[in-house]
Amino acid sequence: MRPTVDFLLFDWLRVEALTRRDRFAEHGRETFVSVLDMCERVAREEFAPHNRISDVEEPYLEDGRVVLPAAALSTSRAYLATGMMTATQDADAGGMQLPFVVDRAANAFFSMAANALFGYPMIAAANASLLMAHGTPRQKEAFAGAIYGGRAFGTMCLSEPQAGSSLSDIATRALPDGDGYKDDPLGPRYRLRGTKMWISAGEHELTDNIIHLVLAKAPDEDGKVQPGVRGISLFIVPRFMVDERGEKTGARNDVALVGLNHKLGNRGTVNTLLNFGEGRFPVPGGDGAVGYLVGKVGQGLVLMFHMMNEMRIEVGLGATMLGMAGYLASLEYARQRPQGRPVGPAGKDPSQPQARIVEHADVRRMLLAQKAYCEGALALELYCARLVDDQKTAGPEEAAQAGLLLEILTPIAKSWPSEWCLEANSLAIQIHGGYGYTRDFSVEQYWRDNRLNMIHEGTHGIQALDLLHRKVRMQEGRAMALLAARVRDTITRAWGVEGLRDHASALDGALAELLEATTSAWEDASPSQALANATPYMQGFGHVVLAWLWLDVALAACDIADDMLREGKLAAARYFFHYELPKIHAWLAVAARRDLTCHDLDERCL
Amino acid sequence: MRPTVDFLLFDWLRVEALTRRDRFAEHGRETFVSVLDMCERVAREEFAPHNRISDVEEPYLEDGRVVLPAAALSTSRAYLATGMMTATQDADAGGMQLPFVVDRAANAFFSMAANALFGYPMIAAANASLLMAHGTPRQKEAFAGAIYGGRAFGTMCLSEPQAGSSLSDIATRALPDGDGYKDDPLGPRYRLRGTKMWISAGEHELTDNIIHLVLAKAPDEDGKVQPGVRGISLFIVPRFMVDERGEKTGARNDVALVGLNHKLGNRGTVNTLLNFGEGRFPVPGGDGAVGYLVGKVGQGLVLMFHMMNEMRIEVGLGATMLGMAGYLASLEYARQRPQGRPVGPAGKDPSQPQARIVEHADVRRMLLAQKAYCEGALALELYCARLVDDQKTAGPEEAAQAGLLLEILTPIAKSWPSEWCLEANSLAIQIHGGYGYTRDFSVEQYWRDNRLNMIHEGTHGIQALDLLHRKVRMQEGRAMALLAARVRDTITRAWGVEGLRDHASALDGALAELLEATTSAWEDASPSQALANATPYMQGFGHVVLAWLWLDVALAACDIADDMLREGKLAAARYFFHYELPKIHAWLAVAARRDLTCHDLDERCL
Repeated sequence: MRPTVDFLLFDWLRVEALTRRDRFAEHGRETFVSVLDMCERVAREEFAPHNRISDVEEPYLEDGRVVLPAAALSTSRAYLATGMMTATQDADAGGMQLPFVVDRAANAFFSMAANALFGYPMIAAANASLLMAHGTPRQKEAFAGAIYGGRAFGTMCLSEPQAGSSLSDIATRALPDGDGYKDDPLGPRYRLRGTKMWISAGEHELTDNIIHLVLAKAPDEDGKVQPGVRGISLFIVPRFMVDERGEKTGARNDVALVGLNHKLGNRGTVNTLLNFGEGRFPVPGGDGAVGYLVGKVGQGLVLMFHMMNEMRIEVGLGATMLGMAGYLASLEYARQRPQGRPVGPAGKDPSQPQARIVEHADVRRMLLAQKAYCEGALALELYCARLVDDQKTAGPEEAAQAGLLLEILTPIAKSWPSEWCLEANSLAIQIHGGYGYTRDFSVEQYWRDNRLNMIHEGTHGIQALDLLHRKVRMQEGRAMALLAARVRDTITRAWGVEGLRDHASALDGALAELLEATTSAWEDASPSQALANATPYMQGFGHVVLAWLWLDVALAACDIADDMLREGKLAAARYFFHYELPKIHAWLAVAARRDLTCHDLDERCL
Repeated sequence: MRPTVDFLLFDWLRVEALTRRDRFAEHGRETFVSVLDMCERVAREEFAPHNRISDVEEPYLEDGRVVLPAAALSTSRAYLATGMMTATQDADAGGMQLPFVVDRAANAFFSMAANALFGYPMIAAANASLLMAHGTPRQKEAFAGAIYGGRAFGTMCLSEPQAGSSLSDIATRALPDGDGYKDDPLGPRYRLRGTKMWISAGEHELTDNIIHLVLAKAPDEDGKVQPGVRGISLFIVPRFMVDERGEKTGARNDVALVGLNHKLGNRGTVNTLLNFGEGRFPVPGGDGAVGYLVGKVGQGLVLMFHMMNEMRIEVGLGATMLGMAGYLASLEYARQRPQGRPVGPAGKDPSQPQARIVEHADVRRMLLAQKAYCEGALALELYCARLVDDQKTAGPEEAAQAGLLLEILTPIAKSWPSEWCLEANSLAIQIHGGYGYTRDFSVEQYWRDNRLNMIHEGTHGIQALDLLHRKVRMQEGRAMALLAARVRDTITRAWGVEGLRDHASALDGALAELLEATTSAWEDASPSQALANATPYMQGFGHVVLAWLWLDVALAACDIADDMLREGKLAAARYFFHYELPKIHAWLAVAARRDLTCHDLDERCL
């Protein structure tokens, strides 16, 4: 895994070039390497040993308090000690100004080691990042500062029991907290009432406080709540009340735990149902939980989704690393487990010793498929992370292009690993046989943990609508055209390379098919008809993107000196082109011809 | 579900025609219906309420004894009371002489209601059936009689820790028990020593005794153990010693529980590791557990696999019904859950009430996919079960043809539902969104339970080798030719039917592609090269078989009077032809051109 990370970062994405930019000028290959070394080591030593226990010792309630697996505290502290919480932040604010792409690569080791335990600091860091981007100086100091100082963790409170995919239907309400509500040093002060569902890390005692970031509907200057998402604002709601420097006053805020969700996997991250302002912990002066507005009224979804691309890369990377963990576990198993004999010309010879299962072609197929899925997904996530850096630090034109590419690739970065690295986890179980179906081996947990990723942070179906409804058509198709141009660049470079020409030709055909399906899907169509096959369309789109990345990675791999590393990348690329890319026809065809089998179905026929 | 079962049995498979055969002459539609009614009712009332508890209250050890979920006893008794244990047995032996196809359809309700709890009587019935087919009269009376009388349940002990897929490597040994070993009224008496792994229902106290059927290597008349599978014999090893009528003598046999396996799913069926003859419960007169030979020395695998087709249909049907349970749960959820709004020409209108999610085309796609997978799989299993009846009770030529078809379809009957009804379960989770990821809803359990089915009773890879190595080539390709002829019959009939002609044409092309891939795979190839892509080949084969069955079912559906039932079958068939059948190209192409990407891969590249 580490040689692959190094190859992707340094040889393929050439991240050293980033150090020529002002923001990253203090860095060099050696600082990147040392961050990777540290994270790899801490993940292996401090996180990995606790992954199973975080599943078995599921969080529970005792006298109204949440009891977490003990390892949640030790891993959170170990993570805080690495300094990675602020790695991408400004040096002025105590950060390292590390490129996002290196930061994500380094954090990937924690996802692989114990994804559910990594959830606590990871969500807190995302929360603090949002405040650093959009909070007032006082909000940054009081709330992000508490998180960076290890005194608080954070949450993102979006969903409600009746509003998951449909955020415009949230019912949590925020009202100004009295006449002087605008004068609070921590920001305009509101009172919130409502219920939030699926809140990861929503209640625990790992830290002294918890900083909830809460979406709620608030009235505008005219006292009216705008309909739909325009009515949504963003609030900071601390579990314990704080003074203007973020120090706890000792009083509770009116945030009450209603209960825990008991999940299929990812159990180590406690998942909660929270009531805001139900009156269990009344705060004098009014009814409701106290919250401080971030940005302006009505900006809630915009602010929250400002970080959406990065958060979706994070989910995709988590899915990728669960896949990778299963791949490596099953590879190790396959190299040691003897079972059966390959079929020779005269059948099988029982007098021979059993073969190790890695010697069976079908097992190698399952291993190579996992490698193609997981290393391909890792390339995708790191490519997107590099785009985030470019969007923020490259020259204006390159930055604009990076932003556009990021828009169109984000639904793939979120959805593709969620689907295919889950499939990788299933193959890892299959290689283990009956043992893989037991809880004595790690692979069944990876499979359960990974099933979450097609659901949260925008379901598969939501990603597909985002892609086909908005992204491929944004700015009159400019993002799509830009992506196609990048794909063609790779094809052009690969034409001249022996052994990659067939792949280049296959990708050329696949790209044409994708572009045609995109046009046909929308031709003279109502949105509901065009979008009826958005998910198969996204599956086809995703496989074309992955084929492109594999070809691009293969081009870079040709220069690797290590024979096995190089041949491994080329074999995985070959697997992807031979076994996976041809699947796109079935998916794209229904989108291209706007198959209405499902659209027109009378539900009474089901 | 019930209308679909009735339609498949009576309208499509025309099971009433079976009553014209002597064996089934006492039956009529009304007796079939009453069996189905009874099983549907008992499954709903006595099994379904306990499905979740059988997962949560996983079997555990207490003072060396296995404690099962309490419901295991009540469900086993309820099942025994139905008389279904002996439903297919001769009337002389207390059976109903029910056709196997009706028996399986009726038992399917128990699989759907609580698959893990159904495991106890189901495995016992399979054990007793084997004894009824191959035991001596005394063995039938003493052992099968004990099972049918509710005094014992049974097991199948094949695998060992070092020998799962590779049964020729089992290490359990059986030696004649003294000079007079041939004179025991219960059969030639042996002493067994060895360890058996993955033994479902291997230890419990649901019944007074447990009848283990154990594969072990025993010396032949010359005192030599033949190499490989020819050295394997089959033994009856009761947990408690019995007299010649099968009554317990009060003494233990030397069968010791080593431990329980803790599984991902299917937890209600206790899964054990057993030691035979370790000396914990010595039986005077020698060392080892006492076992009675069934059939002749060296026939073990032949006898065990005599029932293999039926057992694999059983596994396929279990996978199917787990899929069906998830389909029905997600359909009910989709009809009730409001969330979001379809996209209209002007986007979404938040002032409108939320739509039920069944109104979203993508949700209907996920429901229709489940329906196509699960009802298609049910058609496959019932078709195969009907072949079992034909093989046993039709005229000689029809019986021979049925046997041949059964041989080639069995790997599909086992593997296809294991793969695609698992996918259905994943779609059922997806429809539930976050709720589907919690243990408050049933669908996550179905998904975990179903993951077993690609592993046990011959893994996916083993099924694929069986299909491409043996079945498509058996008798110089006669089974394949017969299947192709049946497919062509259906195509011919469908040509004349408006609305089915396109499907017929697509199936015609798919069949040609399959036949060509079959030939190409073996052309001038070594077995290891031909078989390198056996699994993708089987996936393509399976989808062609399912397309054929859906077309055949659609033909029968045209005559259904109930509009919604008819249109539902036609829509599912259309879904399968439009969305699923085109996937075969990717799978069959690698087999046809003998892609050696995986075969030739140096394992050090992984």
